[in-house]
Amino acid sequence: MPTIDGVESILVTGGAGYIGSHTVVELLEKGYHVVVLDNCINAVKGPDGIAESVRKVEEITGKSVPFYGIDLLDVDGLRKMFLECNFSCVIHMASLKAVGKSQEMPLTYYHNNLTGSLNLISMMKEFGVTNLIFSSSATVYGERHELPMVETHPTGQNITNSYGRTKYFLEQIFKDIQKVEGWNVIMLRYFNPVGAHKSGKIGENPIGVPENLMPYTAQVAIGKRPELRVFGNDYDTKDGTGARDYIHVLDLAAGHVAALKKIKENCGLKIYNLGTGVSYTVLEMVAAFEKASGKEIKYKICPRRSGDVDTLLGDPSLAAKELGWKATRGLKEMCEDVWRWQSKNPEGFTSQ
Amino acid sequence: MPTIDGVESILVTGGAGYIGSHTVVELLEKGYHVVVLDNCINAVKGPDGIAESVRKVEEITGKSVPFYGIDLLDVDGLRKMFLECNFSCVIHMASLKAVGKSQEMPLTYYHNNLTGSLNLISMMKEFGVTNLIFSSSATVYGERHELPMVETHPTGQNITNSYGRTKYFLEQIFKDIQKVEGWNVIMLRYFNPVGAHKSGKIGENPIGVPENLMPYTAQVAIGKRPELRVFGNDYDTKDGTGARDYIHVLDLAAGHVAALKKIKENCGLKIYNLGTGVSYTVLEMVAAFEKASGKEIKYKICPRRSGDVDTLLGDPSLAAKELGWKATRGLKEMCEDVWRWQSKNPEGFTSQ
Repeated sequence: MPTIDGVESILVTGGAGYIGSHTVVELLEKGYHVVVLDNCINAVKGPDGIAESVRKVEEITGKSVPFYGIDLLDVDGLRKMFLECNFSCVIHMASLKAVGKSQEMPLTYYHNNLTGSLNLISMMKEFGVTNLIFSSSATVYGERHELPMVETHPTGQNITNSYGRTKYFLEQIFKDIQKVEGWNVIMLRYFNPVGAHKSGKIGENPIGVPENLMPYTAQVAIGKRPELRVFGNDYDTKDGTGARDYIHVLDLAAGHVAALKKIKENCGLKIYNLGTGVSYTVLEMVAAFEKASGKEIKYKICPRRSGDVDTLLGDPSLAAKELGWKATRGLKEMCEDVWRWQSKNPEGFTSQ
Repeated sequence: MPTIDGVESILVTGGAGYIGSHTVVELLEKGYHVVVLDNCINAVKGPDGIAESVRKVEEITGKSVPFYGIDLLDVDGLRKMFLECNFSCVIHMASLKAVGKSQEMPLTYYHNNLTGSLNLISMMKEFGVTNLIFSSSATVYGERHELPMVETHPTGQNITNSYGRTKYFLEQIFKDIQKVEGWNVIMLRYFNPVGAHKSGKIGENPIGVPENLMPYTAQVAIGKRPELRVFGNDYDTKDGTGARDYIHVLDLAAGHVAALKKIKENCGLKIYNLGTGVSYTVLEMVAAFEKASGKEIKYKICPRRSGDVDTLLGDPSLAAKELGWKATRGLKEMCEDVWRWQSKNPEGFTSQ
């Protein structure tokens, strides 16, 4: 693999995002050189155009992170970056990711996620970069499935939203390309990331109204929003509210480092669930968050939200076996870490 | 719908291709104004950059056809065309379409077919063109399916090649976009087009070695190739060779005119099989072609070809009911028309 002074250089697309920024910290701490590409559509930028989250990552690690504020639809910008850098692997996280919004603006989602990824892959091919770690999602398993979800289960049927379809399509595309090009491709099917870095300097920072439970709950706790809306209490779960396999973002970040090691074995195509194997309902999460924050979380029950499923629960045993990776952080720690981030940064990232 | 001097203007992408050129003739004869976009990757161009097939279409109809020799990946070129024209409907046929090649170069197929289509759709949205007829394929039904295939059958499972996946993905994408944008979108699932125009001036004109049975057979008949390779004789069909629902390209062309009429009813989303409801095996086709051409067709049995299925057979009754359209031309006519085209043009289109 190409290195700079003996250190491998990893491109992280979407590296200014929530999962991205935590993964970049983990990579830097493990000694990798990291370049971040991010269009900052969902990130706060400083006056110099650099994402605040990336600046915080530099603060946490004491290392510098070259930052390209470009969009994957910008082929010229992309080529310029590939000319300037020499990547051993691409971790491709960049994606529009709001399930609800994807139903309102499917063309934007398809264009951004599919065309953007195809531009990236074309550039990797042009520059001989043959290692890819792709951020897939448990959504690819669709609505009707056995639980827990296992990597060998069928995918692509009854996916309830355009966002999920972009992830499913990209999995298929990368499989076809891997087969022909002989690349190493690891697709990581994320379950529901929550939590934040221990420093309280980086965390999930939704722009506008949060679509995910945890940041919404945290904003209620801090007094920014009056109450939590719980979408549906008639699901087939223990208390009727949706159940998810929540995973601490630091565990998820560690999963990427484990995948990078696997890539070095010339692993070919691999697919792994990154989850905990345990699910919690919305109301369980709310109770845990009340305890961690010492705040009361008001909520009201609302109708189900289009595109949601009752339960997501992954079997993480393949990743344990082949990557030697396991999620180690529990619900209490997830909530405490979110609360630290939220209470230290009531307005999230702010432009300095 | 926008018109030019009271005549509707239709954009046909891929209009220089086999199905495209026949459809353009049919549209012109029904009084539509037609603009053709084609990158001519699979077409022969004259010294002025215009596709020979389009020139022949003008010869047949006595009408002129504005031609844009641009690629759907060329966003600037695309925008320029949309600025110059005022389309009432887009018939989107442009596609890389060789099943075998799609397995060898999936990235090229995905980039061309998906990104190209998303560019086109973005441009339609930008310019307020809200009617789309899309060339889909029976391939979307996948490998395991009930026969005959009905539009309500599940799609997307066990699709054996990247070409087929691009068609399936695009169907899903157009469905999502139609739902939100409220466009009229008709997706036509083609079975296996064969035949040629009665004039003998246009027909299927593969560049290099033909991938489809009929043009290959015709090239054997004319002496350009020594023998036909029959891929597999152990399929579950009456004689073991693959069976297909062959449809005369003139019937297919008429299906598009029927779809255009349907679009005017503000039909929303519609999906129709365009097939005959009858299938013939490779050996039946060969026998019919020998009869039509008076030539012996030598063949040898070869191993199955990756990505092929045993039988494709469509139920065309929905198109009959809702479009008032039916295929009327039989096997004999298909073979006679191909033979006329092939014997009049042993080298296919040639640059003049």
